[in-house]
Amino acid sequence: MTPALAHLGEDRLIGLLTRRWPRAGGRLRTVALGVGDDCAAIRVPGSRRLLLLKTDAIVEAVHFRPGETPSKIGWKALARCLSDIAAMGGEPDAALVCLAVPPETPLARLRGIYRGLGRCATRFNVALAGGETVRARELSLAITLTGWVAADHMARRSGARPGDALCVTGRLGGSGGGHHLAFEPRLEEAQWLVRHARPSAMMDISDGLASDLPRLCRASGVGARIDPDTIPVRRGATLQQALSEGEDYELLFAIPPSRLRLIRRRWPFHVPVSVIGEITASRGIRPPLGSHGYDHFRKP
Amino acid sequence: MTPALAHLGEDRLIGLLTRRWPRAGGRLRTVALGVGDDCAAIRVPGSRRLLLLKTDAIVEAVHFRPGETPSKIGWKALARCLSDIAAMGGEPDAALVCLAVPPETPLARLRGIYRGLGRCATRFNVALAGGETVRARELSLAITLTGWVAADHMARRSGARPGDALCVTGRLGGSGGGHHLAFEPRLEEAQWLVRHARPSAMMDISDGLASDLPRLCRASGVGARIDPDTIPVRRGATLQQALSEGEDYELLFAIPPSRLRLIRRRWPFHVPVSVIGEITASRGIRPPLGSHGYDHFRKP
Repeated sequence: MTPALAHLGEDRLIGLLTRRWPRAGGRLRTVALGVGDDCAAIRVPGSRRLLLLKTDAIVEAVHFRPGETPSKIGWKALARCLSDIAAMGGEPDAALVCLAVPPETPLARLRGIYRGLGRCATRFNVALAGGETVRARELSLAITLTGWVAADHMARRSGARPGDALCVTGRLGGSGGGHHLAFEPRLEEAQWLVRHARPSAMMDISDGLASDLPRLCRASGVGARIDPDTIPVRRGATLQQALSEGEDYELLFAIPPSRLRLIRRRWPFHVPVSVIGEITASRGIRPPLGSHGYDHFRKP
Repeated sequence: MTPALAHLGEDRLIGLLTRRWPRAGGRLRTVALGVGDDCAAIRVPGSRRLLLLKTDAIVEAVHFRPGETPSKIGWKALARCLSDIAAMGGEPDAALVCLAVPPETPLARLRGIYRGLGRCATRFNVALAGGETVRARELSLAITLTGWVAADHMARRSGARPGDALCVTGRLGGSGGGHHLAFEPRLEEAQWLVRHARPSAMMDISDGLASDLPRLCRASGVGARIDPDTIPVRRGATLQQALSEGEDYELLFAIPPSRLRLIRRRWPFHVPVSVIGEITASRGIRPPLGSHGYDHFRKP
């Protein structure tokens, strides 16, 4: 019997599917950063900046309820991609929208979705540049977003070093209460970090700390020791939700402890930064974060 | 009752949804070419080339049959975007793949799809740079493709002038016999055209000549007179199919007649070029092409 995705999990699936891809390093020197980070990064001849590329989709009944306010759906679709541009320390630029839509969908609903997209684009200085509409049985929005980052400022998942402090912005958990539809991607915070505090590794928390922290550690070849009491839990949420509910869209980053003072003194934002542990040379997360974060395919 | 998409048609739908988008001309000077052409084109500071951006999706049971050979599905998904980069005279660069997939999908099927993607990418020098996987009830692949074109070489839909000859590459119709899954996007042909013959307007034929020619004419503010006997019909297909079946993925272009000789003398490809009519100052297509081409939403 052919193995199905439900038994495989998302990360292994992506690994299997993309193992033989033509990518950086061969004849094609264009990809500075490919599969496995929050965005891809593309070299642009003549420019010291890297082009960041992100694509992501939200699907009805998976990422939003069928009865959800349409403008919130549009906001979320674009804001998720913005959170990934933020994770690299980048500035967003232009977006394309690929709408897959059942033909019987009321036009007013689509206009609401596009109103939310437009609001999010205006708020975060994104130019909506085009897209495509295709017929489908279920409603989904695939967003493509470009961004730019100076090559020597770009944050990756892979640079964390033993001894680094491990930090998160904002509060985690309880996103299903409404945050997942109305969050503000941490673009300015991330741009400040890469310019002033230089995190050694960074990503956004979209599948929950319990899923995403191991990804950062694997990419960096390190482990982490967490102090669960220091994890900033959203009001009304439990620690368990803060670890595994997902859709927090906060920044997770590692930073040499000597640069923590800079953040404590000069951090110019209202969003808090919490130190939740440190990076260790020995692999694995201690204490184990127990339950897994959200996985698109693995059965609970 | 809210109007549904089926009564609206694709072009009007896109017009309605994107009317209030933040785009070129305002604070955001990034978009050189937005909604309404085959690709979006983005200005890159310091570069004389424009970044081309395309996103497109194929959906099971709409763009391919559920039982289709998986590698052909992957080829088609990427080749469709390549055809749009070709339509601008561009060179493709990097692609992202957003896979929406039911969790019970056999892994072997997905591997086949990605094998087809990889083959197409290798054949046309595309770097596969990343993507995303999301859970869904129906299988779809949304591809994002970047490309580059010198700003003064870029072909648009909007430059056709009265008196221009109207040309197509290859043969039209009968794509459902297999061509729609195995076509070769006309990248080299289009790059040669923009460098040497400078079409005044160009696009790819994806929805059929009867749908796409009116789009080129509307974008250029002109009309066209067609000689139906000169339309190159694929062997085994009817003229009706050549007009309205769609998925030809050939180039449609307008060119001053003085430059036709250059094409006749120096065209270095096996793919034929046919002159099928001329651009007129008076709007509309004569003779009327009768049936409409493929529209994603309009009822037949």
